[in-house]
Formats: sequence, C-alpha cells, structure tokens
Amino acid sequence: MTVLSEDLNAGSKRTIISVDAMGGDRGPAAVVAGISRSAKINPDIAFILHGPKAKLEKLVARKKPLRGRCEIRHADDEVSMEDKPSQVMRNGKSTSMWSAIESVRDGEADVCVSCGNTGALMMLSVVRLRKLPGINRPAIAILWPSSNPQGFNIMLDVGADIRADEHDLLQYALMGVSYARNGMEIKRPRVGLLNVGTEEHKGRSELKIAHDLITEQAEAANFDFVGFVEGGDIPGNSVDVIVTDGFTGNVALKTGEGTARLIGSLLREAFKFSPLSRIAALLAFTSLQRLNKRIDPRRVNGGVFLGLNGTVVKSHGSSDATGVSAAVKLAFKLSQSGFSKKLAARVASTSQLQQNDAGAVDKNGKNT
Amino acid sequence: MTVLSEDLNAGSKRTIISVDAMGGDRGPAAVVAGISRSAKINPDIAFILHGPKAKLEKLVARKKPLRGRCEIRHADDEVSMEDKPSQVMRNGKSTSMWSAIESVRDGEADVCVSCGNTGALMMLSVVRLRKLPGINRPAIAILWPSSNPQGFNIMLDVGADIRADEHDLLQYALMGVSYARNGMEIKRPRVGLLNVGTEEHKGRSELKIAHDLITEQAEAANFDFVGFVEGGDIPGNSVDVIVTDGFTGNVALKTGEGTARLIGSLLREAFKFSPLSRIAALLAFTSLQRLNKRIDPRRVNGGVFLGLNGTVVKSHGSSDATGVSAAVKLAFKLSQSGFSKKLAARVASTSQLQQNDAGAVDKNGKNT
Repeated sequence: MTVLSEDLNAGSKRTIISVDAMGGDRGPAAVVAGISRSAKINPDIAFILHGPKAKLEKLVARKKPLRGRCEIRHADDEVSMEDKPSQVMRNGKSTSMWSAIESVRDGEADVCVSCGNTGALMMLSVVRLRKLPGINRPAIAILWPSSNPQGFNIMLDVGADIRADEHDLLQYALMGVSYARNGMEIKRPRVGLLNVGTEEHKGRSELKIAHDLITEQAEAANFDFVGFVEGGDIPGNSVDVIVTDGFTGNVALKTGEGTARLIGSLLREAFKFSPLSRIAALLAFTSLQRLNKRIDPRRVNGGVFLGLNGTVVKSHGSSDATGVSAAVKLAFKLSQSGFSKKLAARVASTSQLQQNDAGAVDKNGKNT
Repeated sequence: MTVLSEDLNAGSKRTIISVDAMGGDRGPAAVVAGISRSAKINPDIAFILHGPKAKLEKLVARKKPLRGRCEIRHADDEVSMEDKPSQVMRNGKSTSMWSAIESVRDGEADVCVSCGNTGALMMLSVVRLRKLPGINRPAIAILWPSSNPQGFNIMLDVGADIRADEHDLLQYALMGVSYARNGMEIKRPRVGLLNVGTEEHKGRSELKIAHDLITEQAEAANFDFVGFVEGGDIPGNSVDVIVTDGFTGNVALKTGEGTARLIGSLLREAFKFSPLSRIAALLAFTSLQRLNKRIDPRRVNGGVFLGLNGTVVKSHGSSDATGVSAAVKLAFKLSQSGFSKKLAARVASTSQLQQNDAGAVDKNGKNT
C-alpha cells in the first residue's frame, strides 16, 4: 500500500475517491473540472487521480479547490472505448483505469470513478477487486428515467453476466435494496422481479423460485416486494428496484435507449415539416430542453458495479464536469454510508440464514 | 364444414376472411365499419362475421359494400379482455372468438382477424388450429416503429412462448422472413438475432448455435443474415426481421411501449410549463400529431400468430375502423399469397435438410 500524503488524509476524516482521469470522450479536462466542482462543495472529499502526471498536474494546478486534496498517480496509457476487455486484462497494467482500480484494491480508497470503457472496467473490477464473500455474480445497476417521485428506477443486472439463477436474483434484490437505501436515500424500497406477466404462475422456473426466496427475505431486509413486474413498469411508478438477469436487463436498457433516440429524431423531423412547425419548434425549444434533461443519459449518470470488494461507479462516457461531479457525489455517498461493508454483511447474513434454513434474523443486519 | 352461400364464394375467386366481431374496446360497430371499408376498396374479399346475429345483421344491413359479401355466424357470448385463456379454453365454445377460429379450422377461411384478448386468442389458435408439421413453437410477430425505409421492423417471438432453443430460433427466422416477404413485400429481408453484443463469441450458448444454423439457411431461404443485433437495433435501420425468444421479446416490447408512454407524458408536462410553452404546444400540435401517428400502436396494427395451420391476425384492442381495415388488408395479403402453405413448405424443406444433414436445396422452396 502506498502511503498517502498527510494533507490528503486530513486526520482520516476525508473520504478518498480514486478517479480515472482518462478514457472519457471529453478527456481529462472535463474530469478535473468535475472533481474540482465536487471538492468546492464538499470539504470532506479528496481524490487520487490517475493518468499522465505532467498533463494532470497542469490541469489540477489551475483548480484552487483541489489544492492539497488531489494526489496524482502516474499512468502512461489509457483504455480506449474500442479496446477489448480481454486485451486490457492482459496488457493494461500501465493504464489509468487499472491504476484507479488498484487504489481501491490496496485500500487507499474504497470507491473508484471512471468514464471509460464499461466492459473493460467491469472485467478489471471483477478480476482485481474480486467478488464479496457469498456473492456468486456481481451486477451492474443503472438508473432508469421513470415517473417515480425520485424520477428514476434502479435496475440490475444490465449486463455484468448473461445468466442468473434464483439465488443470483435474490442477491440482486438485496444488493439493489442496499444501493437504493445507501446511495439514493430510498428508506424502504419497493422491489419488483421482471417477468412477462404479473401472475405468480407465469414465467421461467427460476423466476418462480426467486419470487419465493425474495418474499422470504423482504421482512428481514426491510423492503417491500411487489412481486412480478413487466417491461412497462421499468419507466413506471410501481417499484424502485427492478431485478432481472443481465441478458434481459441489457436488451431492455438498449431497447429503451433506442426508442428514446427514435422518438427524438422523429420529433425533430416533425418540427421541420412546415414553416409553422419550425416556428413552433423555436417556441418549444426550452420545453424540449427540459424534456431532454429528464431523459438524457448523462443526467441519469452512474452505473454502479455491485457485489465486489469495493465500489466502482461507471460514469457515462460523454460525461462533462456536471456528469463527473454527479458520479463523484454518488461515490462519496456510497463510501460514507459504508455501503460496501453493509452489503457484505447483508449477503453474509442471508447466506447464513439460507444455510441454517431458519428464521433467525441478524438484528444488526436490518438496515444494510 | 358449413356450406357457404354462393354469393360469398363468387366462383371461388374471393378470399374469405373470418372476423371476430366482438371483444374489441370499441365494440362491433367499429369492426363492421372496418370490414365495410375493406370491402369497398377490394372487390376480391368476403367475410364470415362472428357474433350475436340480430345485432350484427342490423350493423351490416347499413353498409352497402357488405351486401352479399358478409355471412353472419351467430355466437351468443364474447371473450372479455379480463378472461383467463384457460377459462376461455374450457368454457368458451359459445364465444365469437372460438367461432371465428373454427371457420379457419373448418377450411371456410384460411385467415382470422380478431381485436380481442391476446392470450385467449393465442391459446385457442394453438389448440384448435394446431401447429404446422415440423414447427415446435408458434410465435407472435409484431411490427415495431423504426427508422427503416418501410417505417417498421418485424420482431418475433414477443410472447407466444417464454422458451426458445436454437431450432426454435431458426424456425422463427424462417417464419419471419416468409412473413416479411408475403405480408410486407420485403423481397430480401435482413434478419438479425437479438443478443447483448454483436461479437460472435457473445451470449448464451443456444444463441451461438442458432447463429450458425441461421447462417447455413440464409442462402437457401433467400435472406440476408446480419448476425447478432442489440436492443438499440430494434427501432433502428440495420435489419427488417428481429429474432428472439418470447421472454426477451415481450420484455423488450413492453419496455419500448413504456418508454414511449413516459416520453409522451413528459412531453405534455414540458409543454404545460409556461405560458410561452403552451403557445408553442398549440403551434406544434400538427407536428406532434404527425409524430403520434408514427408511433401510435394502432397504426402499427396486426400482431400475427405464425406456425399454425392457418393464420391469425390480432388487431389492437382499441382498433377503430381504420385499424380493423388495416388488419383485414394484411390478412388478405397473407391469404392471397398462400403464406400459410409456403411457410409449411419452407419449414418442411428445412427439417428435411437438417435430417439429411445435406446441402441439397428444394428449388421450389426458394421463395417461401
């Protein structure tokens, strides 16, 4: 473990976040601007920033809020969006992404933020951080724009693994609840299991078993299980956490994004149709901007990798300073709430429970 | 088999379509108005209409184009949207839906149109019409608004069955191609297999095998296989036919519909925000109407059940006269092109091919 400068630690009161400065579409300047914004608002935060030292030093020197609160860790290379995860795994030791995850592995930070290549980040995270004891498959959780009071639903898994059996689905439910509570301040999350109908007899056999397993855990883990939900509920208001396997979740995510894109382009076409509609488009501009803000993937920032020894927040590739700052805020919240440790305790207590096949509940685990 | 009136047959030149008059949200008046519109445009079409005789006779008498071209088949009851498929199967013999399918089973018509309960219609269709020889699982194919030249993609299965192995997926591809060619006039359809990535090594094992099976058949069945596609391609322009299992297809369909609904309501909200945006909304009205037309499920009418002895066209529950007429047009096209027989021949030739494990191609099957 590298010894951090005393400034950065500031009597161990500061939460240290490991940040990959490279790999985002807007380059390191957007990342540095983002963490500087966070540092200005939040005095309890400090950074380890990974990337080419000379370049980063220049960028950081210009930001007053980062003075004494950002240590630069040199990395020669960066992971591009086109790199294959397996290549990065083999030859990526000198990249800023690898280095950023290594800081979590070494315990210097307990959460990492990157705007880079999702596949590579996931593979590096799983291999270098390893799974939490008791977790079979880690998951990627994302926020989905919805008509919920909070404006989004949490869905997992959206592509960490293409398979999930009934026990994995139960773990996703527990991880999703823990994330909703610690990251999103939803006290008693409503959880739904994605299926092709809401009747209990419907769907694949692992879904029916998972339905029973999740029902059994709802009381102990302090959440409401609403049972099966359908695709139409993902952007709806009937749940806060949607549990599914990574294959279905990934298809749903990309279908939703594609549909939003199609409607966007049809909307632009519709407004170009006649001189009158062009005028309407001008007048409607701010209304449409407001809409765009709500459904823009950059605003719903931060896919989170769950089930690992340490938390990894994946910020959108095209994140600007606002996007990076939002991801840092989420990372800070998760780190401060001891999310990773709580999650580990919850999973351990559930495995214990299932092994004992008994109803005894770990009282300390209640709010994990 | 009931003997049809001579008028209706008109020297066997007319295509006879069996129509369920009941079960749609707008009642039999909308259905009769729809088939009357079709009869007026198309002299080669005739109908067997199923429902309460007295009521239907009154409605039909008012429509001149239906004179001598619509035989009414009495049915006391109707299937409601709330009825469970299994109940309808047990107690539904006196319903208009049952009667409408029976006309196809008896060979009076070779295609049936209904606006009623999808689940019940599917179950009745499978049990009463039975699967085509060689077909393992029937499928529901729908049209999905897309940026394609034709304005939609065909996706199947969207929920006939929650499972599909590699052979089922191959059959879906062949059925989808046949439907695209005979129903949608797409000469050489581009087919994609839905997955979580486009690389050939990705996804579940049955998808990898299906990839190879479909590749082998593309030449003989005269289509382009573009390989794996992702959720974002469903509303896109890279394929015409998207093949997936009924679980994934159903989730994707409902997610897409839900996303469109959410954007619609956010759009309305956005336009209500300020006095200026209200004015903009007024001016934009026709533009938005145009957009609505493009993505309105009523316009993209007609889910089709494939793989049965006879074709069943499911029109949207809320179909008005235009919607019903569109479904009838599709049913006429499919019937006239001998779609059902061509599909049976294609499937038989492929099963033969696979049994022989040989490369010999049935020349007559080339354009099925």
